[in-house]
Amino acid sequence: MIDHLVIIGVGLIGGSFALDLKKHGLVGRVTGVGRGRANLEKALELGIIDAIADTAAEAVRDADLVLLAIPVSAMAAVFRDIAGGLPSACILTDAGSTKQDVIAAARVGLGGKVGQFVPGHPIAGAENNGADAARTGLYQHKPFIMTPLPENTDAAVAAVRALWEACGANVSHMEPYQHDHVFAAVSHLPHLVSFALMEELAGRPDAETYFRYAGSGFRDFTRIAGSHPEMWRDISMANKDALVTELEAFIAKLSVMRDLLESGDSDALEALFSRAREARHNWIKGKND
Amino acid sequence: MIDHLVIIGVGLIGGSFALDLKKHGLVGRVTGVGRGRANLEKALELGIIDAIADTAAEAVRDADLVLLAIPVSAMAAVFRDIAGGLPSACILTDAGSTKQDVIAAARVGLGGKVGQFVPGHPIAGAENNGADAARTGLYQHKPFIMTPLPENTDAAVAAVRALWEACGANVSHMEPYQHDHVFAAVSHLPHLVSFALMEELAGRPDAETYFRYAGSGFRDFTRIAGSHPEMWRDISMANKDALVTELEAFIAKLSVMRDLLESGDSDALEALFSRAREARHNWIKGKND
Repeated sequence: MIDHLVIIGVGLIGGSFALDLKKHGLVGRVTGVGRGRANLEKALELGIIDAIADTAAEAVRDADLVLLAIPVSAMAAVFRDIAGGLPSACILTDAGSTKQDVIAAARVGLGGKVGQFVPGHPIAGAENNGADAARTGLYQHKPFIMTPLPENTDAAVAAVRALWEACGANVSHMEPYQHDHVFAAVSHLPHLVSFALMEELAGRPDAETYFRYAGSGFRDFTRIAGSHPEMWRDISMANKDALVTELEAFIAKLSVMRDLLESGDSDALEALFSRAREARHNWIKGKND
Repeated sequence: MIDHLVIIGVGLIGGSFALDLKKHGLVGRVTGVGRGRANLEKALELGIIDAIADTAAEAVRDADLVLLAIPVSAMAAVFRDIAGGLPSACILTDAGSTKQDVIAAARVGLGGKVGQFVPGHPIAGAENNGADAARTGLYQHKPFIMTPLPENTDAAVAAVRALWEACGANVSHMEPYQHDHVFAAVSHLPHLVSFALMEELAGRPDAETYFRYAGSGFRDFTRIAGSHPEMWRDISMANKDALVTELEAFIAKLSVMRDLLESGDSDALEALFSRAREARHNWIKGKND
């Protein structure tokens, strides 16, 4: 039971976390902090939070658990602001899409208190944002990845795990480095590729003709190009090294395909397509089992 | 009214065309031809066709209209086989995903009768195949692109247009060259890119870890990697020149993104993402209007 939960960034992610814990009677009161006053008032009206604090530093003074659910680029400043007043028994966690950079920012900002920070990443992407989008059950059967620090106590790690499990998430552990590489490949790269195709076609003089004949395959392929540019700029920059590695591997793979096309090696091309199709079939099957 | 319609390749595309024309009373009888006997018998049982012919050459002898709904790589042989017995009043059309190569094959195979061939491409992709997948209404509000030949009579072009319009399709004309370039960009390239990502990850020793954390964005992005390898090998090879051009433009765009990441130019990256998002938003909006 968390007497006082503080949510920094009351959007889809932070708001849904608060709603689930409230529903299960696991929190006493919830305080919200954020840049947009109107959003916080909406969250209050919707019963997601019970109070609004003006600053994160003020909110954490008597907090038992703090969730940072803000863009990764905004975390360094918050760690710095809250470090001084953070009670020694308070556990800090986050929902950032990248982990190595957030951990680095926490080490700098929190200094000797970094052991109170248990890094995490709930996988529950959605295009909607803001407190309006928050809902109970968002995390049901979704992965939550923890990348604990050597400085974390077992009790702090167990407490964070228990809360996300209460939200229905499937909790697992990863190394921060592995986390960032895996998500560069399965999430960040596809976003960049989808943005790239949309932007490439939009920039052509006859863009209208292209879009006119784009069908359902194109629609699904480019769905993630509807994602938030500022958020994806932040994630891309935060996970730059891993993402550049993935981009280069992908460019190399596309170059292989171009060579197979140019040389007319239709057998090798079909074999490549077949491996891809089989992998996808097995993946979807595994998800549904 | 078509007294005798011949469908060569009674799958989703050919079968759905026959069903719609039957429903609207626009055909007398339908004969099916194809490689798979079981599929043809299924089509007969489902009432999609009224008779099975052993060979295309035999079927077309008293046909009024013939639709070739077979892989583009199989068309050359069919043109050659049917040319001799093709009645001079019979109109030939196709549903191939590429047009320049099909037209080239028609010129070779049909010789002096090429004017009877009115090339077309219905945009109604789906992952299912075979006569079982055929249904009425498949073409409702979907584009049908005609790329008529200089040798076609106005009457032949009008007849093909009228039939697809009866199926509910939005019919438009394009030059074969333009058709192939537009579809290389909005359809063939996304398929190759989706296959490439899936195959790249599947080939890694720790592939299981990647797929374990792939979420809904990845699922939509890779949906078209579940497409038929043989069909996409054929389309890729048939539209090789345009596809290589698109692949190279796309590799160049991804290289620009890599450079923006490496140099830390987050403003330019965000601007690129914003242009992509806006283009997609406008496209979706335009489709729904």
